[in-house]
Amino acid sequence: MKIAVLAGDGIGQEVTAEAVRVLKALELPSLELVDADVGGIAYKRHGHPLPPETLGTVRASDAILFGAVGDPDCDALERHLRPEQAILGLRKELGLFANLRPATVFKGLEDLTSLRPDVARSIDLLIVRELNGDVYFGEKGMRTTPGGLREGYDIMSYNEDEVRRIAHVGFRAAKAKGGRLCSVDKANVLETSQLWRDIVIEVAAEYPEVALSHMYVDNAAMQLVKDPGQFDVIVTGNLFGDILSDQASMCVGSIGLLASASLGEGSFGLYEPIHGSAPDIAGQDKANPMATILSAAMMLRHSFGEEAQAARIEAAVAKALANGVKGGDLGGNAGTREIGDAVLDNL
Amino acid sequence: MKIAVLAGDGIGQEVTAEAVRVLKALELPSLELVDADVGGIAYKRHGHPLPPETLGTVRASDAILFGAVGDPDCDALERHLRPEQAILGLRKELGLFANLRPATVFKGLEDLTSLRPDVARSIDLLIVRELNGDVYFGEKGMRTTPGGLREGYDIMSYNEDEVRRIAHVGFRAAKAKGGRLCSVDKANVLETSQLWRDIVIEVAAEYPEVALSHMYVDNAAMQLVKDPGQFDVIVTGNLFGDILSDQASMCVGSIGLLASASLGEGSFGLYEPIHGSAPDIAGQDKANPMATILSAAMMLRHSFGEEAQAARIEAAVAKALANGVKGGDLGGNAGTREIGDAVLDNL
Ligand SMILES: CC(C)[C@H](C(=O)O)[C@@H](O)C(=O)O
Ligand SMILES: CC(C)[C@H](C(=O)O)[C@@H](O)C(=O)O
Repeated sequence: MKIAVLAGDGIGQEVTAEAVRVLKALELPSLELVDADVGGIAYKRHGHPLPPETLGTVRASDAILFGAVGDPDCDALERHLRPEQAILGLRKELGLFANLRPATVFKGLEDLTSLRPDVARSIDLLIVRELNGDVYFGEKGMRTTPGGLREGYDIMSYNEDEVRRIAHVGFRAAKAKGGRLCSVDKANVLETSQLWRDIVIEVAAEYPEVALSHMYVDNAAMQLVKDPGQFDVIVTGNLFGDILSDQASMCVGSIGLLASASLGEGSFGLYEPIHGSAPDIAGQDKANPMATILSAAMMLRHSFGEEAQAARIEAAVAKALANGVKGGDLGGNAGTREIGDAVLDNL
Repeated sequence: MKIAVLAGDGIGQEVTAEAVRVLKALELPSLELVDADVGGIAYKRHGHPLPPETLGTVRASDAILFGAVGDPDCDALERHLRPEQAILGLRKELGLFANLRPATVFKGLEDLTSLRPDVARSIDLLIVRELNGDVYFGEKGMRTTPGGLREGYDIMSYNEDEVRRIAHVGFRAAKAKGGRLCSVDKANVLETSQLWRDIVIEVAAEYPEVALSHMYVDNAAMQLVKDPGQFDVIVTGNLFGDILSDQASMCVGSIGLLASASLGEGSFGLYEPIHGSAPDIAGQDKANPMATILSAAMMLRHSFGEEAQAARIEAAVAKALANGVKGGDLGGNAGTREIGDAVLDNL
């Protein structure tokens, strides 16, 4: 059980430290933790946001616990040196093509969202986002038009295999949840989406027990406001998934509580809180480490099959919340360390 | 004052009829209305969703009053024959590059949205969406990868002139509103967005009185849920604008009340409600024509400089609402014709 710990920038350091404490407290016999630099801090130390040393470490590991990347000091760097490239690089290099982002409102925390409490309470949604293709990884650049104008361009594309493998992840997740699958695209405008839709329909034949629907992305953005409870599982491409999963997180309100997993074909996975590096509160013991602690639980479940230990962590977080231990993001004033202590106490 | 009336499909017919009654009731001396087919109905009658006759009619007009397009009968047609292509074709052929979508909560209607009333009440937002470029109009198609796989692709791009002219629209709108401008992109991933951001920053120099900020699209989707009141004017590209403007509309709740304008360089414009053709309730006197009536008001203001007449229509709609005349979309039971009558009574 070799875990690469990539704490990264800003509050990434603090929140990851608490998740590591929780993991250690489980006293798993084979647990091995290895730190590596990533993001802005890696750029500063090694000249690259995803240095070869770090890639070597993660390749020799069974899973990654990831904090956050993003550092205002790096804003002026060329694109390929910016901290965000580290996360894109890890996804691509390690073939982590499936991003799972559950969004569920925690009991008693319905008043944190801008949605009406009855609407918020209805949310129990998993977004399955493709991570290795789309306009993220196609050819891109600056060119000059025949008329001499500067033009930026990015090629969006999906091939049938890329769509097929993420469609399977979506259908399996919907089946496991006993729910429906909604595939989101923009097939009325995009050929990439037309292929996406065709392949999702093909794959559907293998999952007769899952009801499949299709929705245009603009309508999905509306429906996530109007009635987010209508969704069980959404499967979508990299760009639309980026937008909709962030929208859905905010519907839940407590982004300091939301975990995510990025998976490939095998058991290897990268686990991270959905929040960013929050440089404004970094190093002040203000960040809520719960999302990272819950990401560690996802890791135990998905990469190591340790369902009981995962549930143990989740129960401890729920108990701490029920006891009123809340970070600033939840309207409370518990510090990072204090929240970690509370989760440890409840393990 | 020659207006091409393109009622289109489904409820487009009914709602446009009411807006036409309102326009006629103003007794403008030079008003001339010409009907033309568009969308599914045009395909059925002329074999194309945007037939040459229709293009001829609109080119000879000063403005378009547009209903809605979309017809389930046409779902199986090839892309270029589907009803939606009519609206894309009109935008491109007529150089309507700037889509203005105001989103404001109507007093007394705060309970229609899924947002908490206090959050909804804070919304007073204009989205300026570019309509002639982006991944909508780049080269697109199906191809085969070197490995023999089917692949769909679409090229996203913007050149500096395209960005510059929409940036000016955004800045002018923000200036007129006495507000800030938020430019939304995905510059951390897309070269198209990097050019967008560079040019918006260049144009900003001409508007020292407007405070400019930049936001990634995923964050914008979050902020529109968390605190939509923070925005005055958002300027963004075609694809992100499609998603965010629909999301914002639903934040307001009453999509049966929201109008939009699509403008080019001159005074010519296309005006349409933001809702679709709603085939499920078409022909049943159930649709709310207020959004189309308000679109006609926008037309009088933007294309004809008839501010007083525009305000007269808007006041009549507000009065009808205040008197409790509400369509099914607003939780009432007033019919299409009845709502038209009420607005006429209050003119
Ligand atoms: C940092 C950025 C490149 C990244 C993305 O767009 O994928 C982030 O928004 C995310 O969702 O993980
Ligand atoms: C019908 C469709 C092509 C269109 C778009 O995506 O622009 C619609 O969603 C809109 O926003 O007007």
